[in-house]
Amino acid sequence: MSDLTITRVEAIPYAIPYRKPLRFASGEVRTADHVVVRVHTAGGLVGTAEAPPRPYTYGETQASITAVVRDLFGPAVTGTSVLDRAEHRARLHRTVGNPTAKAAVDMAVWDVIGQAVGQPVHRLLGGYADGLRVSHMLGFDTPGTMVAEAHRVRDDYGISVFKVKVGRRPYRLDVDVVRALREEFGEEIELYVDGNRGWTASESARALAEMADLGLTLAEELNPADDVLGRRWLVQQCPIPFVADESVPTPAQVTRELLAGSATAISIKTSRTGFSESERVLHLAEGLGVEVVLGNQIDGQIGTLCSVVFGAAHEATSRRAGELSNFLDMTDDLLAEPLQITDGRLLAPTVPGTGVVLDEDKLARYRQDA
Amino acid sequence: MSDLTITRVEAIPYAIPYRKPLRFASGEVRTADHVVVRVHTAGGLVGTAEAPPRPYTYGETQASITAVVRDLFGPAVTGTSVLDRAEHRARLHRTVGNPTAKAAVDMAVWDVIGQAVGQPVHRLLGGYADGLRVSHMLGFDTPGTMVAEAHRVRDDYGISVFKVKVGRRPYRLDVDVVRALREEFGEEIELYVDGNRGWTASESARALAEMADLGLTLAEELNPADDVLGRRWLVQQCPIPFVADESVPTPAQVTRELLAGSATAISIKTSRTGFSESERVLHLAEGLGVEVVLGNQIDGQIGTLCSVVFGAAHEATSRRAGELSNFLDMTDDLLAEPLQITDGRLLAPTVPGTGVVLDEDKLARYRQDA
Repeated sequence: MSDLTITRVEAIPYAIPYRKPLRFASGEVRTADHVVVRVHTAGGLVGTAEAPPRPYTYGETQASITAVVRDLFGPAVTGTSVLDRAEHRARLHRTVGNPTAKAAVDMAVWDVIGQAVGQPVHRLLGGYADGLRVSHMLGFDTPGTMVAEAHRVRDDYGISVFKVKVGRRPYRLDVDVVRALREEFGEEIELYVDGNRGWTASESARALAEMADLGLTLAEELNPADDVLGRRWLVQQCPIPFVADESVPTPAQVTRELLAGSATAISIKTSRTGFSESERVLHLAEGLGVEVVLGNQIDGQIGTLCSVVFGAAHEATSRRAGELSNFLDMTDDLLAEPLQITDGRLLAPTVPGTGVVLDEDKLARYRQDA
Repeated sequence: MSDLTITRVEAIPYAIPYRKPLRFASGEVRTADHVVVRVHTAGGLVGTAEAPPRPYTYGETQASITAVVRDLFGPAVTGTSVLDRAEHRARLHRTVGNPTAKAAVDMAVWDVIGQAVGQPVHRLLGGYADGLRVSHMLGFDTPGTMVAEAHRVRDDYGISVFKVKVGRRPYRLDVDVVRALREEFGEEIELYVDGNRGWTASESARALAEMADLGLTLAEELNPADDVLGRRWLVQQCPIPFVADESVPTPAQVTRELLAGSATAISIKTSRTGFSESERVLHLAEGLGVEVVLGNQIDGQIGTLCSVVFGAAHEATSRRAGELSNFLDMTDDLLAEPLQITDGRLLAPTVPGTGVVLDEDKLARYRQDA
């Protein structure tokens, strides 16, 4: 047994409430009920990541993630080396779905690899930029409240890129918000929209037309991808990149949706595809010639740190701001050193591994299985 | 300056004759007139790879590779860290083409990374298998001579997978060879064919029909990819995977040829896409759902070792035998420890880096710039 042999994998469910619920067309989140995954090795190194349950997107729950890591994925990788990533992939893929559970195992494995070889994972993956610009997500509310939040986030963190959740009915509710933001900030902010499949194709087309003068840079999942012809009709007329997110959780889905004309850009989320599979999605999207954006799975600080590690490593994911600020709404978090957004940017860790170090007291306080 | 900072990049042209010329439809090779690329770092680690000039495929010559590494690519990466792979890619891509020169720089950089972190590159890339089965290429000759070579290679090295070069006129010359091989060895060997664009589409179709009972597993580049409609017509009727090789030197070409229906499988060559870009090609091909085969750029032992490092690291490239035996025809080579094909397999090195260690006396003897 080498020092890098995996001896066990922990799955620790925890819960930390949000200050306020985050509301969007496909659901809302009031509590971060995530699962910490820790990969232990014979030499004593421990890698850490987390999985956020998103039942309305992937069907996973906190209980399902905890169980599948404890009962299937942990035993599948135990006894292998952390370097056996290709074998891990082959074994985990025998179980369908469970994307965030698989991703957390992969990122925890990478964390050990980085620690073992004494290099930041961000650099092992390519090390393109030292960090990423941050895009902030504005959930459903009134124009006045959302403009006020944008002001606060801009003043407090220097963030000037905003992703506005849309998809309400009537669509004018959302158009009014976007217009209010543009009128308030002028060209000083970048704005784009995410419908989480809330509108029909025709509602989406009308809303896009009414927002044509507002300088949006991306439109994401405005209507359901399963409305196949409606989606294609919409994407064909959309003058800005149309981002597929929850409709492309796997490389094969990326291929299908792009070839079907159902998207012209791809959202990459490390919480859903880890580091190894996110590289596949990135290389596929780049090879097919479409743009990418680094998305947020309503991550806590652990997941956000992992997003920065991956996103800053690559040129394509560094071009646009990454969606990295959802953690700001949590009442507390587990990182020993809280993330700091400064001048609208988050820096990639420069320590070996992914830089995820937990506050063990907080983990003990918030864990749900004690 | 860190220990991993690149201080200079050497490009050393050398020439080693082949025992006999290797003949195929697009050209022939009598001498290995390759270029050794060495990446030197501040801490003293040196990474080594090589570039084989293939003017009939990529337009590169020994002189052009030596010059572009010395004058452009070396200076472009000097002063960066070996870990700055994403930045290297961005800088090298400012120069069009020159694939084997770029690939050699990337593989030499990876060699340093592996040495620096104390791990075989094969494992850093995924570490799927401990080695690869070897496929041997049979160049143009008479049926009797080619059968005799197959016997010799099978007896000496345990190789039972053969890639038969085809594309001569009349096509019956090649059909007779394939039939002679199948009749001699029965089901004990795997056979596939590579036309190097030598036939027309209709010649290819007739030859495939006449070989329909011979159990071929792949057909590669039988006719020119630039005969766009003829190629598509051929591929549509081809009952085995049709491999694109020289028509897909970049990820974008992979996408174009696959979407055009001009291929149903992709040849990956580390000599042309290094490790970093070969990962992109692999992930693209897998994401698009086509098979891959690890090809040979008429590599010497250095290039062959790099092919094994990459091919054995991934599940998809491990499924089929890799084309790894061209070096057998060279009268000498530069590795301090010559490669050994045993039981039809080559093992991936288990030492840190890629395992490329040169015999400096031989390099001094064969180098062309002294």
